Formats: sequence, C-alpha cells, structure tokens
Amino acid sequence: MAIGAISSASDRPASAALHRVAADNATDVGAIRRRIRTGTYRGHTSGLAPRHVQANVVILPSELASDFLLFCQRNPKPCPLLAVSEPGQPLLQALGTDLDIRTDVPRYRVWRDGTLVDEPTDIGRYWQGDLVTFAIGCSFSFEQALLDAGLPLRHVELGRNVAMYRTSVATQPAGRFHGPLVVSMRPFTPANAIRAVQITSRFPSVHGAPVHLGKPELIGIEDLGRPDYGDAIPVADDELPVFWACGVTPQAVVAEARPAICITHAPGCMLITDRLNHELAS
Amino acid sequence: MAIGAISSASDRPASAALHRVAADNATDVGAIRRRIRTGTYRGHTSGLAPRHVQANVVILPSELASDFLLFCQRNPKPCPLLAVSEPGQPLLQALGTDLDIRTDVPRYRVWRDGTLVDEPTDIGRYWQGDLVTFAIGCSFSFEQALLDAGLPLRHVELGRNVAMYRTSVATQPAGRFHGPLVVSMRPFTPANAIRAVQITSRFPSVHGAPVHLGKPELIGIEDLGRPDYGDAIPVADDELPVFWACGVTPQAVVAEARPAICITHAPGCMLITDRLNHELAS
Repeated sequence: MAIGAISSASDRPASAALHRVAADNATDVGAIRRRIRTGTYRGHTSGLAPRHVQANVVILPSELASDFLLFCQRNPKPCPLLAVSEPGQPLLQALGTDLDIRTDVPRYRVWRDGTLVDEPTDIGRYWQGDLVTFAIGCSFSFEQALLDAGLPLRHVELGRNVAMYRTSVATQPAGRFHGPLVVSMRPFTPANAIRAVQITSRFPSVHGAPVHLGKPELIGIEDLGRPDYGDAIPVADDELPVFWACGVTPQAVVAEARPAICITHAPGCMLITDRLNHELAS
Repeated sequence: MAIGAISSASDRPASAALHRVAADNATDVGAIRRRIRTGTYRGHTSGLAPRHVQANVVILPSELASDFLLFCQRNPKPCPLLAVSEPGQPLLQALGTDLDIRTDVPRYRVWRDGTLVDEPTDIGRYWQGDLVTFAIGCSFSFEQALLDAGLPLRHVELGRNVAMYRTSVATQPAGRFHGPLVVSMRPFTPANAIRAVQITSRFPSVHGAPVHLGKPELIGIEDLGRPDYGDAIPVADDELPVFWACGVTPQAVVAEARPAICITHAPGCMLITDRLNHELAS
C-alpha cells in the first residue's frame, strides 16, 4: 500500500460551487444516508449536509485496536476520536441512531497486508466479528465554521484538494503505530490567521487549533509548492501558511503497519453522521 | 508634548527578577495602595500585585470626554475601557472600594496645551470639577496569563520595555481624536504564537487577541530593530513577531489633540485596582 494511494484520504476535491449547491439542497441527512446506503450515491461528501459532522473511518482487527486507540490518545490533534465501536459491532449509535458502518460510507477501500484489494460501496462481505471501527474527526467541521465566519478558503475557491505535507515532527508512537505528523495547509492574511486560530480552537474534536503557522521550514516543509498529498495551493505575499494536524496522519501510520486487514473510507468519501458541527464547539 | 515623551506610557522596565520578587512578596494590594497614596512608593508597578488588574489612566476635561469616549468605543482593541468616572468624581468604585484617582497612581504627568508641566505623586492641586477619568486596560493582565501558561516573554527576561511601533493602520477617528494604531511586539515560536492567540483572546478588556503576526511590513513597520517607543527586542530565526494593540495608542492620540489640561500616569506607573486578572477572562 503506497502512501500515495491515500493522498486525499481525509480531504476532497472541493469547489465553491459544490459547497453552495450542497448547502442549499442537501441538508436532509436522512435522505442522503439512504442514497449512500443503497449505493445510489458513491461520490465525495464535501458540502453534503454541511451542518453535519463528517468522519474519517479506520476499521482494524481487534488485535490492533488497543494499540491504535493508544496511538489516538497520544496524538489527539491528528487523531481526534469521535467514536470507537465494540469489536464486531457495525452500528455506531454515538454518531447516528441507525448508522451502520458496513453500508453508510459512500465508498470504501479494503486493504490486505498493505495492498489495496477492493473499493466497494458496502463492506458486508468483508465484515468480521473482530473488526473495530474508529471514527476520527475531519476538517470539514472546522472549515464550515471558518466559512461561516467569512474567512476565505483558497482550496475551496480553486476547487482543489487542500495541500498536505509530511512533516519532520514525529507522532507519539504506540505499539505498531508510528510515523510523521501530516499537516494540512490553508493560507490566510495575518488578521485572518489570528481569527482562524480563535475559531478552530473551539473545535478540539476536529483537529482544533493550528499546530504551526509561518516558517514551514521549521517543521520540515521545504517547498510549499510540492505537497506530499492533495494539491498545491498558492500562498500570496500578504499571507501566512497556517498548518493544522491532518486526518491523513492516522491513515499513513496504519498503512505503514500493514495490518492483515484494514478498511478505510475512500478519499473524500467520508462518513456523514447525525451529529451537528455546532455540537462540537467548546 | 512630544510623542517621545510618552515612549513607555503603558509599559515599563520589566525584569524577570522583579516579576518573581513581586509575585512572592507584594500581593497585599491594600498595603501597596497605602504606600502609593502616601507617596512612599512612587516607582514602576510592573510585578506589583501581579494578580490584580492595572490600568492606563487618561484624565481629560469634560468638554473632550464624550469625543474620547467615542474614540475608545470605536477602537476597543487599543482602548479597552475598564471604567469611566462622572465629571469631577475622583473615586473609581468600579475598580476599588476606596480607590481615589487623585492619590492612587504612584506618579502622574500633568500636561497643559500639550506641554509637560509637572510629574507629581498626587494631583490634588490640579483637580477640577470637570475632570473625567478614563481607566484603560493594560497588557500586564494578559502578560501574567501568558507567564502563568509557561510562555516566555523576551522583554521580561531581558529586563527591557516591550517594543512598540506606530503602524500604518489608522484608528477610527472621533472628534478631535485621531492617529495611527500603536502596537506592542512580543516574539514567539509559531506554536507559542498560536497559544498566545488562544490565551489573550480570553482577555478582550486588556487588548485581547493580537492584531497581527509575522510580516511587520504589512502594517508599516520597516525595521523591527527600531521601535518607536520602548526597547528593541530581538526576534530569533525560529520566531514570529506577534503584535498587540497597545495602550500607548490613546495616549499618543490625546497628545496630538493638545487639550488645555490632561493628566496621565507616568510611564510604567500604573493604577493598581482591586479587580483580579482572572475576573477579566472570558
């Protein structure tokens, strides 16, 4: 499983137009979930049900679950846990009254020993009694809060993926899981960068405040124009690059561990939950 | 009245040692106030009663008071008002049960038509029935919160005044009062800069969050090594300069207006109030 294969794992080809259309028309989370569950909708979830929390999904065998749980506990900024299932339990009642992880992600990726073997729209045939689901907060929630506050998101305006970078900052390892922190970058003017710190600080369960701003070289990023994942996003002369811990971090770490089986959401095809973004605000 | 004359108006020659000694020994605000009131103590107030709110003081004739009040309302970041007296009322009960503005500042400056005419330890002989006192929040409160959070303050470590700069950013004028925003600068690593935004955002009544960070040229600061007021403070290669709206702003604006009479605190000799810093936190 090449790192490149998960290049957009927690982010998506976003567009301002998609955001607008979705905000107008797609707010009935029940209807959206039914279309996803039946396989009618198998696309990106950016802008779908924009008031609702979306989640990164990692499903692992229980023998690895306690190490991964510990990894998330030790690295809460890249791995903010929204919910963890019991082994074999496909329902995630903490995130939705009828939410079934086997059917309610638009598209999955199934990995065996680190190799991508399938990209199905449901995972019923892969389900095992020992699988544990981890739902991890996603930047969509804080991006919606930034947009609501009138802050521009360059990657959304350009219809691109957010730019993501492997840093020289190591995560805190746990058992088989270790690797570098991956960050996403959004450019802001200094005044908007300060506002973005304030706004995202209120959302610790979806990556929270930035981990760095300005001076990318201090965290091992040599060329902002060449992200490791996602798309290059221009930073204007009057802007600072602002870096948030990214949900690609746990996926990259799991990829390196090459578990016998692992199931994730496909890039940009997140789990849409019943939770509302504003419920997450501290 | 030259601008240079107020070069340290809201800040002080701070030192880490002074902070420490004061924190240990000088927490009895009543005893401190008695020493100030009797003229026994006439020095800087940095580190005195460090849990207590200190204030910038501007005293103006009532004919100018409504313009100045409007100026503060329009510019809350440099001019966060803690209290405004009735004309001729020397007691500031909002800030202390027995607080008398005629005696309770260690040292004052008296200005007539823009010229410094006296630097007394009480202003009884200058008191007029039309004088209005403005008590304006001071960065000491948020600096204490930054120190409490373990963030280093370079100017305190070096025993220097904070560096202050006139910017190219205009304040919102009101009547006779207008002029540039003055900012104070503190250097922080990017991670500490983010933490400083979070911490100072909780203190809107003492300047609140930074107004700018990184890229000093965008706000008209051409050389960080040459502050307009206070002392030069070095910024390391792995640090960003972080800028807060500064209480020197209203003093510079008043100086430009050249009122018939104006009384301020002497640089670094602030009004110590009964209010506690933590009461101000949102």
